[in-house]
Amino acid sequence: MEPVVHQVWPRVLQHLRRTLTLPQRSHSGCVENNAVTATTHSRPIRPTLLVSRLYQPSNLRDVGQDSRLQGEMTCKSQRLMQQAGLIHPSNPGCYYYLPATVRSMEKLVRVIDQEMQAIGGQKLDMPSLCSADLWKTSERWDLMGKELFRLKDRHEGDYCLGPTHEEAVTTLVAHQATLSYRQLPLLLYQITRKFRDEPKPKFGLLRGREFYMKDMYSFDVSEEAAYETYESVCQAYTRLFARLGLHCVQVQADTGNIGGTLSHEFQLPADIGEDRLLVCGNCSFSANVETVSSEITDCPHCKTGTLVESKGIEVGHTFYLGKKYSQIFNASFSNAQNKPCVAEMGCYGLGVTRILAAALEVMSTEEGIRWPGLLAPYQVCVLPPKKGSKVDGVAALADDLVHTLEKAVPCLRGEVVLDDRTQMTVGKRLKDANILGYPYVIVVGKGALEGTPRFEMICQQTDETMFLSKEGLIDLLGGVETV
Amino acid sequence: MEPVVHQVWPRVLQHLRRTLTLPQRSHSGCVENNAVTATTHSRPIRPTLLVSRLYQPSNLRDVGQDSRLQGEMTCKSQRLMQQAGLIHPSNPGCYYYLPATVRSMEKLVRVIDQEMQAIGGQKLDMPSLCSADLWKTSERWDLMGKELFRLKDRHEGDYCLGPTHEEAVTTLVAHQATLSYRQLPLLLYQITRKFRDEPKPKFGLLRGREFYMKDMYSFDVSEEAAYETYESVCQAYTRLFARLGLHCVQVQADTGNIGGTLSHEFQLPADIGEDRLLVCGNCSFSANVETVSSEITDCPHCKTGTLVESKGIEVGHTFYLGKKYSQIFNASFSNAQNKPCVAEMGCYGLGVTRILAAALEVMSTEEGIRWPGLLAPYQVCVLPPKKGSKVDGVAALADDLVHTLEKAVPCLRGEVVLDDRTQMTVGKRLKDANILGYPYVIVVGKGALEGTPRFEMICQQTDETMFLSKEGLIDLLGGVETV
Repeated sequence: MEPVVHQVWPRVLQHLRRTLTLPQRSHSGCVENNAVTATTHSRPIRPTLLVSRLYQPSNLRDVGQDSRLQGEMTCKSQRLMQQAGLIHPSNPGCYYYLPATVRSMEKLVRVIDQEMQAIGGQKLDMPSLCSADLWKTSERWDLMGKELFRLKDRHEGDYCLGPTHEEAVTTLVAHQATLSYRQLPLLLYQITRKFRDEPKPKFGLLRGREFYMKDMYSFDVSEEAAYETYESVCQAYTRLFARLGLHCVQVQADTGNIGGTLSHEFQLPADIGEDRLLVCGNCSFSANVETVSSEITDCPHCKTGTLVESKGIEVGHTFYLGKKYSQIFNASFSNAQNKPCVAEMGCYGLGVTRILAAALEVMSTEEGIRWPGLLAPYQVCVLPPKKGSKVDGVAALADDLVHTLEKAVPCLRGEVVLDDRTQMTVGKRLKDANILGYPYVIVVGKGALEGTPRFEMICQQTDETMFLSKEGLIDLLGGVETV
Repeated sequence: MEPVVHQVWPRVLQHLRRTLTLPQRSHSGCVENNAVTATTHSRPIRPTLLVSRLYQPSNLRDVGQDSRLQGEMTCKSQRLMQQAGLIHPSNPGCYYYLPATVRSMEKLVRVIDQEMQAIGGQKLDMPSLCSADLWKTSERWDLMGKELFRLKDRHEGDYCLGPTHEEAVTTLVAHQATLSYRQLPLLLYQITRKFRDEPKPKFGLLRGREFYMKDMYSFDVSEEAAYETYESVCQAYTRLFARLGLHCVQVQADTGNIGGTLSHEFQLPADIGEDRLLVCGNCSFSANVETVSSEITDCPHCKTGTLVESKGIEVGHTFYLGKKYSQIFNASFSNAQNKPCVAEMGCYGLGVTRILAAALEVMSTEEGIRWPGLLAPYQVCVLPPKKGSKVDGVAALADDLVHTLEKAVPCLRGEVVLDDRTQMTVGKRLKDANILGYPYVIVVGKGALEGTPRFEMICQQTDETMFLSKEGLIDLLGGVETV
């Protein structure tokens, strides 16, 4: 047998090495402290993230003076998010998502991607501009009324801004002339900006006119297979909300203008919820009041329990559509006998921006934001002492600590910020940290001067404080999950 | 000194452990092979990615039969992208981005994020719906003419779909009443869908009506500081294109309807390019012809070289805006003397979908797609032998190889697909792999039966083939950069 020679392979190696000869980075004074300069490696080493440069928590102290709280504050999450510089109002029902919100949203998108891909979801991206023809074919052009944003292009063609994409995705699949039963179930989803001309936008990100939604569409060979897919998506939603620490209820729901024969909502119980739910005290039955006759007070499932009303925020919605859209647009596949058959469909929505706002609504206190741990924009905030104070000397230890933590706990890379606004007292900065809701706040104070330096660790999720050595901090933070 | 006690901290630990008690995953037959079930850990172990389940390369063989090549094919990248199931046409100038494109785009977005954040960029997300008032204030409501998509909401309010966001971002910054000179430079950017009603959309993703753009806006204390920021963004663009392996030219450009006094384009030389460039053969001078008087043939910079014309695709554009927008909207900061000063601005665009299509346009062959290595949807494709062939027995080795590679080279996690369409010959599947352009294709054939199994490795970027042991493969692929 001839020996395996690992030949020199110049072109490929040259190809792989190309990225190592990039121009050097140089720019002064941005968010990242450029004292630590980036290396030639293509993934830049992260310099310390400084709170003083972050847009825009550094202005929390001055809330009264600026216009951050302009407009009517209709609920707690809206007020806190505007106050903390997470969102800024634009047109009615439209918001700027400021940097911390974008970080949180990106984490939420990653969690959703993981859960959708774990059940076979494939991510695509469909146009926002939807032609009127498609919507007329499904007869929803008229049905949707004023909720649809409509516009004309330069050639007088009629379009709407897609609030949902049943027509678009069904046409796409219909265009694939060679879809085989072996390729089903096919689960296609997107996480994109959607538009809906709400009559009364309110509650900040909870009911806006422009928002992010995850919409998934399934194609199956039979009703049985479609029900199995439906069930697997509901399970994925349940896992998703569990990972976020949100206690959602899956309730029987109305199919509305989407259509179909079976539907569930995922409701997060909350006082400001706009949906009214009936929950059985005896069994697992729960339903949106819309689906239950007003005379019924006893549970239709167990027959013995009484239905109790509560309020909820709808954060997810699933629909079994059957052949409603696939028939109209002829989305078909070849069966085992090579005969064309119309696919069975389902559609499944998650309100991405709404999940974020709803989570803050139910988790936050009146004074400060509390995040689902996975979604906090930054996990850890390190506070050095006030400049000129007696323990001023330990300031360098705080900077060290940031780097030590990021090195010892890889998943904290880019997750640790230094509150370098040392012209402010520790107390004032702790108040800001409370408003912003970092899950972990570490105060570097006089304990850091001891033989074995100790640090004050405040876990804002559980409201506990303790003193830990550097090893203790690493040990505890090693258990933090990030995404 | 008292010893540091690492206390039991029940609530926090309970909190951290919460994610470990999730319901089990179960769903049959999707993209991922469910023989390997997910664990209780929240980050699911990736099962083998099967080509037969990917949407939609499995239908490559049937290109002639379906409508994938509907519409006029105006350039190579459009034809290849439609043929390979990367995009599907919707309305004129609008495309569905199919799953492989979304993967590639997400990688491009990560590279852009890295480069923008390395110079201090902070990512936000602004509404697509822009009120007419803002655009009337800047006098662009009329100036933009038919390029602007315009619409009315249910209250007869006038809006446009933002093609660019100078007005929106300047208003945002103006609303922050307490911006200090210490917080500048402030670099805010977004990567979002933009809208432009092109008179003649063409060239696939190169000139569409709906596309993704990265737009960054800078705010500085002085003209000098603004120039420094401008320069640092140009350097970041240069690094970005170098990492993608794109040889772009930075040319002097016209400021168009954006305004300002200094502007550069980043042009990728290409035959189908719609911009005409003049490049000096003697020095580094290069300019868009729009900026040079038609009588000039000698280089205005070195005075000795002759200007030669070539064509380019504009993939980036930078503008020094001065106070054009900040004056109108009063975006100001407090200087060191606590006096309000109007900020100096710049704006910087990158055509995200356009970079992707332009890269494929210049890198691909007529027969097959070639990706910038960093942006390939999947890095490696493993091909087991045809079912029923003499070496059928090594099929299990192919599946093993996928897992071995993902384990031994962590950055290949989720980057290795198995072409399980073993009813097809290796030759036919190699042809598909050529069209789809995986950078690395590994054929598991009779060499795998040797004492030390050998595998055929085809590097499609450099068009080289060699035979390697498993260790040799790991060694070579260990040098691949992913993002």
